[in-house]
Amino acid sequence: MRKEEFSSRVNPNTSMGSLANESFSIELQQLDSACDTARNQRTHWLLTSPDPPTLCHQLIHSIKKNVGRTTKQSRKEAFFSFLKGLFPILSWGRNYKAAKFKHDIMAGLTLASLCIPQSIGYANLAKLDPQYGLYTSVVPPLIYALMGSSREIAIGPVAVVSLLLSAMVPKIVDPAVDHIAYRNLVYTATFFTGAFQAVFGLFRLGFLVDFLSHAAIVGFMGGAAIVIGLQQLKGLLGINHFTTKTDVVSVLEAVFKSLHNEPWFPLNFVLGCSFLIFILVTRFIGKRNKKMFWLPAIAPLLSVVLSTLIVYLTKADQHGVKIVKHFKGGINPSSLHELQFNSPHIGELAKIGMICAIVALTEAIAVGRSFASIKGYHLDGNKEMVAMGCMNLVGSLTSCYTATGSFSRTAVNFSAGCETVVSNIVMAITVLISLELLTKLLYYTPLAILASIIISALPGLIDISEACHIWKVDKTDFIICIAAFLGVLFGSVEIGLLIAVGISFGKIILGTIRPSVELQGRLPGTDTFCDITQFPVAIETPGILIIRVNNGSLCFANANFIRGRILTAMTNGSEQHSKEKIRVLVLDLSNVMSVDTSGIVALEELHREFVSQGIQLAIANPRWKVINKLKAAKFLDKLGKGWIFLTVGDAVDACLNTKMADFN
Amino acid sequence: MRKEEFSSRVNPNTSMGSLANESFSIELQQLDSACDTARNQRTHWLLTSPDPPTLCHQLIHSIKKNVGRTTKQSRKEAFFSFLKGLFPILSWGRNYKAAKFKHDIMAGLTLASLCIPQSIGYANLAKLDPQYGLYTSVVPPLIYALMGSSREIAIGPVAVVSLLLSAMVPKIVDPAVDHIAYRNLVYTATFFTGAFQAVFGLFRLGFLVDFLSHAAIVGFMGGAAIVIGLQQLKGLLGINHFTTKTDVVSVLEAVFKSLHNEPWFPLNFVLGCSFLIFILVTRFIGKRNKKMFWLPAIAPLLSVVLSTLIVYLTKADQHGVKIVKHFKGGINPSSLHELQFNSPHIGELAKIGMICAIVALTEAIAVGRSFASIKGYHLDGNKEMVAMGCMNLVGSLTSCYTATGSFSRTAVNFSAGCETVVSNIVMAITVLISLELLTKLLYYTPLAILASIIISALPGLIDISEACHIWKVDKTDFIICIAAFLGVLFGSVEIGLLIAVGISFGKIILGTIRPSVELQGRLPGTDTFCDITQFPVAIETPGILIIRVNNGSLCFANANFIRGRILTAMTNGSEQHSKEKIRVLVLDLSNVMSVDTSGIVALEELHREFVSQGIQLAIANPRWKVINKLKAAKFLDKLGKGWIFLTVGDAVDACLNTKMADFN
Repeated sequence: MRKEEFSSRVNPNTSMGSLANESFSIELQQLDSACDTARNQRTHWLLTSPDPPTLCHQLIHSIKKNVGRTTKQSRKEAFFSFLKGLFPILSWGRNYKAAKFKHDIMAGLTLASLCIPQSIGYANLAKLDPQYGLYTSVVPPLIYALMGSSREIAIGPVAVVSLLLSAMVPKIVDPAVDHIAYRNLVYTATFFTGAFQAVFGLFRLGFLVDFLSHAAIVGFMGGAAIVIGLQQLKGLLGINHFTTKTDVVSVLEAVFKSLHNEPWFPLNFVLGCSFLIFILVTRFIGKRNKKMFWLPAIAPLLSVVLSTLIVYLTKADQHGVKIVKHFKGGINPSSLHELQFNSPHIGELAKIGMICAIVALTEAIAVGRSFASIKGYHLDGNKEMVAMGCMNLVGSLTSCYTATGSFSRTAVNFSAGCETVVSNIVMAITVLISLELLTKLLYYTPLAILASIIISALPGLIDISEACHIWKVDKTDFIICIAAFLGVLFGSVEIGLLIAVGISFGKIILGTIRPSVELQGRLPGTDTFCDITQFPVAIETPGILIIRVNNGSLCFANANFIRGRILTAMTNGSEQHSKEKIRVLVLDLSNVMSVDTSGIVALEELHREFVSQGIQLAIANPRWKVINKLKAAKFLDKLGKGWIFLTVGDAVDACLNTKMADFN
Repeated sequence: MRKEEFSSRVNPNTSMGSLANESFSIELQQLDSACDTARNQRTHWLLTSPDPPTLCHQLIHSIKKNVGRTTKQSRKEAFFSFLKGLFPILSWGRNYKAAKFKHDIMAGLTLASLCIPQSIGYANLAKLDPQYGLYTSVVPPLIYALMGSSREIAIGPVAVVSLLLSAMVPKIVDPAVDHIAYRNLVYTATFFTGAFQAVFGLFRLGFLVDFLSHAAIVGFMGGAAIVIGLQQLKGLLGINHFTTKTDVVSVLEAVFKSLHNEPWFPLNFVLGCSFLIFILVTRFIGKRNKKMFWLPAIAPLLSVVLSTLIVYLTKADQHGVKIVKHFKGGINPSSLHELQFNSPHIGELAKIGMICAIVALTEAIAVGRSFASIKGYHLDGNKEMVAMGCMNLVGSLTSCYTATGSFSRTAVNFSAGCETVVSNIVMAITVLISLELLTKLLYYTPLAILASIIISALPGLIDISEACHIWKVDKTDFIICIAAFLGVLFGSVEIGLLIAVGISFGKIILGTIRPSVELQGRLPGTDTFCDITQFPVAIETPGILIIRVNNGSLCFANANFIRGRILTAMTNGSEQHSKEKIRVLVLDLSNVMSVDTSGIVALEELHREFVSQGIQLAIANPRWKVINKLKAAKFLDKLGKGWIFLTVGDAVDACLNTKMADFN
């Protein structure tokens, strides 16, 4: 319709004189045939576009890109650049200066003071002796410091992974029955976690982490935080018999039963709550006064020291206050021979490892990326995965359980002014020294304090404002979020994850199975065709129905549905266009990136049905792979080459021209 | 760029005189500001489009559409129209005439002559006594005649479903051990099949049938045909001990073992092969001479009669020829009390019922639709499902096993000139009469003949030319086809189905996880922007990079990937555009139909990164739901309202204008 637009634009200028007007009518005729030629030229471009790369070619290209070194490099250079890629410390280590080290040592010490009590608490949550939490804060941070590229992330045990292990491994062996077997299974699960993470990174399967959508993570974390909080009731109330299940109903039932049937000692609760209030008050002060950031960071350690002293001096442990007791000092022993690869539960352990791997990576990469974007550098997800994998593999051989990047400690590390990952090294060495020297002093630490330290870290995991934001923006996402939340709360951790992943992918598949088709109309004064429901100003062209398929692929899963929707639109369209019979249906395939044999069959059936009704089918803007397959399937021959166009505008112009020719 | 185009089109006309030229320069200025106004108008349309329907609203609308009767109808009318919808016979039955009945009776009798031997054979394949095959050719066709809307389809037992049952039910109870328990389980599975089919239809879940893609069906049918053929070796060779597995390796092993260890009687083989050759020859004649279509149709019955006579007269059964023997006549007994709902295997039976339901519907609807499209009418998939469901439900109560539409018999029915589904009624009555009168005559029918009748029906299931066509058009589809084929052949029927469905959906999900982004350029002389790899003539605009996201949703599964691809394209683009720094990135969201919170986060991160690099982000053509969510997430405020456009052309024009203003 370019010529109509042209004349409508130019004609209003009546100031041009009859001379110009006369020459204009000649020009319009020239333009008419020029438009035809241009349109044919465009269709020619469409039909003669080069072949798209084949599946085979794409595969080879992608492998080459990922594996191949650039040809310009010599072997030695390539090896060094590979080494630098694997160990980023080789790159930044050279330029490391004393000024940076000053910052890092401060951040590392602050981190260690938070890390020691948290690690003991999380080990307790994971149903392991306290020293295993500290071990996990030694080896993995050191390995990560060599291989990782995030500068702020703080590595060590975290709440959610500890919960995952304590929820899944006891199904195989109850730690209350056989503590050593349980520990060995945890090592083995950690080994699998590391192996999966490294493999994900090596094979560039970073997208697996994306399987947990943002909304699912928000819901899952919220649910996990509440479940972890409920687990702390055991320590806070000093209960002996507890359940191994993690859902709200079982836990509350167990608590009420215990409180009814057993004697319990309110001293635990009083001690725990008073230090919880202390920690929360220091955090409040830290938030109001940014310079006091160290106060909330050392508050947990201070609580541990103070409460231990109180218990030691008052001999409160003889009055029912539960204390840590078992605490072996010294550096990490080897656990190479304790990995259980001959266990009959190897499959189950691999499954647990897989789940932990994905959850741990999700948390670490989310926290790493958000701080990297604050400092303005980019994190390579696949490299991070390899680093995390190696640190957990080595960890599983040195008596550690699964470590990852912690939300709360990373934030502390950042506000303490860390410059590089050296702060992790400082932290690890500090933890190591305290393992050597201080563990005997922690004999009297009350369990209630560990519980209150864990509880104090939980509010950071519950993000109510984000949940509100999700509700405002996307209702389906909110359903996913709530489903994950309730799944964790009332089912189990795995059920919550499964529900979240299931709904997320169900939504994608549903979108493909039930795509929408839209009627298009011309926006006034343009060549642009738009959805007539989105743009009520758009005008339909009489006698021509323009339908756009709104899905990336026309395939087995939706071909019949789309065919049905087009026929329905046709019938409805015919009723509305009652004045003028529909003669042409323009099918806009702009959005359809690929078509399979079922899709082509559906197009052929549509064409046959339209022919029997005397309606011409025109195809507009078939994309690269689509036009290629339509050619291969000989659909273009059936359709007639004159009925394929580059744009909807071209198709409508051609139809109007043909119609005018019919009338003449 | 509309004004540039305009001037380039108009300027070449030098014949217009200086008067016109002068007025043109004024006009160009006017046009300049007119273009700006028009662009702003279009952006205004985009930003003020009405709210898209909410999820809740869509759900209510869809339920209303499916359930609600139109308000104009009275209750009585609505009831009658509902009844007519459920029983199409009430509509066409009134106009049924004697001329049609003449055709139908001919077709029905031809059908019966093919149906009797095939039903006995398929019952044998399903490891049931022969009369159950005949029962299945009586009740289901009668029910379908009342409720179905296809005119050509021939209802009864079919090869693939018989194979499915004989492959899955013996895992619960071996028919050789407890024949009655096996039969009852088959009834129960049939009941579930019917129930699932009816539910699919009532809840309009017709798309479940689409889960098997065209390519998967071709591969699956081919594999099933070979597996069925191999199963017939038992009858053809007269083997006693056979395997219950269906894969090629197990079956061939069992055959070789039997031939080595047991005495076998070549007479079975000779008899079977000679009649197989006879049937194939008649089919060849029927194909060459269209008028002789009845010859291949009655050849199986003729073979049965002849071979039975031969065995009876020569007493060959005493010389090792295996015969049918067990054959109870009479009409279908009730099987209401034999359904096993209290069985501990109820879950497994429901699974079998589900698989049979989908496979049976796939076959029936495929065959129904293809003949309907030949005669030019449309089949409603959901109604057909309800009809099939009811016929199997009733069938399971009257000693039938799963029935569906048969490929081969429907073709015979069609070429015998059937007019309506009355031919099915004629066939059912004929089978009923032979059940009453003729079953005793079939005592001496050799099993080898049944095997050869089944084998003769198999070539129709193997569609090599279609497989070649798939190879030519779509390589991924071919992989799906071959995977299903090999899965059935070397694994089992369920494994083949699972592989096919798995690969099909894996492909859809992969497409969403790894979408492509494309660089766009302007096609010379147009406002159209196209993929520069598909259209090498397209020209990139210096300083502006235009990227189009080629996926229907920007969501958790691909947001990070797309973000990465855009950044890579940006870096590569910067290298190529070395002469002029990229100042604006236009993100064409035409294809993106929906965005979730993860997608919005990715857009926000992109925007932040670009701002830090001094690059402006512009969004072109956000679709209805996308613009709505961008508004809700306040992304538009961050982006700046001036940087959102209806088309890529508008975005580029605006950028060029701003740049010119910068230079001035």
